[in-house]
Amino acid sequence: MNSTLELKDIINAKSRISGLVNETPILTSSLLNTWLGHTIYFKAEGFQKIGAFKARGACNTIAWLIENHHTPKHFVANSSGNHAQAVAWAANRFDIPATIYMPDYSSKVKIQATKAYGAQVILCETRQEADDLVKRASENPDTYWIPPYNHEQVICGQGTVALEAMNSIGEVDAVFGPCGGGGLLSGSLIASRGLSKNIKVIGAEPLAGNDAAESLRKNSIQRLSSAPNTLADGAMTLAVGDITFEYLKQLDDFYEITEDTIIYWTQWLTHLLKSRIEPTSALGMEAAFQWLQKQKGKKTVLIILSGANIDQATTNKIWQNDCLTTEPFKL
Amino acid sequence: MNSTLELKDIINAKSRISGLVNETPILTSSLLNTWLGHTIYFKAEGFQKIGAFKARGACNTIAWLIENHHTPKHFVANSSGNHAQAVAWAANRFDIPATIYMPDYSSKVKIQATKAYGAQVILCETRQEADDLVKRASENPDTYWIPPYNHEQVICGQGTVALEAMNSIGEVDAVFGPCGGGGLLSGSLIASRGLSKNIKVIGAEPLAGNDAAESLRKNSIQRLSSAPNTLADGAMTLAVGDITFEYLKQLDDFYEITEDTIIYWTQWLTHLLKSRIEPTSALGMEAAFQWLQKQKGKKTVLIILSGANIDQATTNKIWQNDCLTTEPFKL
Repeated sequence: MNSTLELKDIINAKSRISGLVNETPILTSSLLNTWLGHTIYFKAEGFQKIGAFKARGACNTIAWLIENHHTPKHFVANSSGNHAQAVAWAANRFDIPATIYMPDYSSKVKIQATKAYGAQVILCETRQEADDLVKRASENPDTYWIPPYNHEQVICGQGTVALEAMNSIGEVDAVFGPCGGGGLLSGSLIASRGLSKNIKVIGAEPLAGNDAAESLRKNSIQRLSSAPNTLADGAMTLAVGDITFEYLKQLDDFYEITEDTIIYWTQWLTHLLKSRIEPTSALGMEAAFQWLQKQKGKKTVLIILSGANIDQATTNKIWQNDCLTTEPFKL
Repeated sequence: MNSTLELKDIINAKSRISGLVNETPILTSSLLNTWLGHTIYFKAEGFQKIGAFKARGACNTIAWLIENHHTPKHFVANSSGNHAQAVAWAANRFDIPATIYMPDYSSKVKIQATKAYGAQVILCETRQEADDLVKRASENPDTYWIPPYNHEQVICGQGTVALEAMNSIGEVDAVFGPCGGGGLLSGSLIASRGLSKNIKVIGAEPLAGNDAAESLRKNSIQRLSSAPNTLADGAMTLAVGDITFEYLKQLDDFYEITEDTIIYWTQWLTHLLKSRIEPTSALGMEAAFQWLQKQKGKKTVLIILSGANIDQATTNKIWQNDCLTTEPFKL
């Protein structure tokens, strides 16, 4: 897939979704900056509509369809997570009906929210059934299927996170983000490279589900056979897409993160930033932590916090042991 | 104690601490508003310096001493919690040394933060020992002891929370806050009454440590014999003060909240507001929930969220069972 998105496409997405999605806050922790000796800015997408950056991509895709006079009568999507809520919310925002096919093992909190945003939710016994049903539904010419990442307008929407952050804080030395299907990182790369050739863009995924790292090593898309066992549920995607893979190849570095480290930073970022932090958001922090230790001199970095949607079971797992007794400078 | 604080005293405090403390965000949840049929604004003091409203009172007291040419050479305080951090932070902000006497059972996270703000921390075997030592230290004429609530300038500092909120959102029908020693509620009452005679000001404390409710019923200050067994550690105070009690008597209503309800709203507010919510912050929410059910017509209320400092052990207790499967409208 030959995709040639540029900064101007992200800027167009930004003006398309302005006033519809939130301009999320930039958070910092003076304690963390003192301890690590660098300046770390966090773009807190947990305060985005639906509690995750996914609202941007869904909203931009719908607004782009309308702008191009291709408004469908119906949206469909398949997702167990934040993308389900994002399409439900965005379709509702434009007064267009949406049907979301969710595996019945999806967290109750996410099913509840998807319904509350006004979408019809079809619970399926397996992910495969959800995938089959959405495909069949999308064959109706009045119906548009919004995929979670492998779509240029979804990528442009997600790219507004980094653009918005750097409009606010200025240029940084490096941008860190988590890798699920690669939409957020692709958008971050296009935005950052457009702003400056010198900004490093660095990805991170759970070691337990390192299909993207394997794909980059083998230079071809590798697919996990089943959902990986990781707390970072936003990065459980089985494979990246053909569009996003082309952008992921251009990243400056890529880190594979252990579950213990995901728990450590989820606790610490929750504590320091006083915000709900989903485990997927901890991936970029650990990557930054490792990268910063290799740098000479004081750096300024941007870490994208993906979202804040966590159910009770996951919260319980995160807080079983006390990581707050070991400060980051003691690691 | 005959205290006659007025709105202008809170306004003076506000101008004294502006630029030193944060103007904290107002949060809302459209889902919660839809479910309850009212408009609820949350003033999120978790995003205050040191993660709690206590920074305001400590900062105002020091700034007021300096303004009146009574700058001491040394500050002392006794606290196991947020007040310790507040005095440590505020003294450091004004480049004046501080010593904080803390019981050694204080949460490690709070001891750690108090030290990180530059204070000398003296760990004591009991609360009584901490109280005795701070009293002795304060006998030095160059030393000033900042008490946690029973002090007019502390009260005025805490009153800036409600003032700032209503400057931002306009007048509301009612303001809800938690009751520890009564400083936050006293300040909220003075600010609200000054803005309008019609605003109801309503307090809440844990049923498990209901000394303030008992004091109001008996019209004399009742003292708990030992620290109550409640998750709301900001409301564990053994007794209100003689100054704060005079203001607490003027409250429009007062609620005593069960531990189960504290856990329920701590989970739900964390989930809906995507913020770290300390259990003490849930007290005002349950009071508002009960009060709103008795009202005719749609109301607009302000709930003061006291802070966001929670250790791992408490977090673990909060998330043991899943409250998120029962939505508030089903209660």
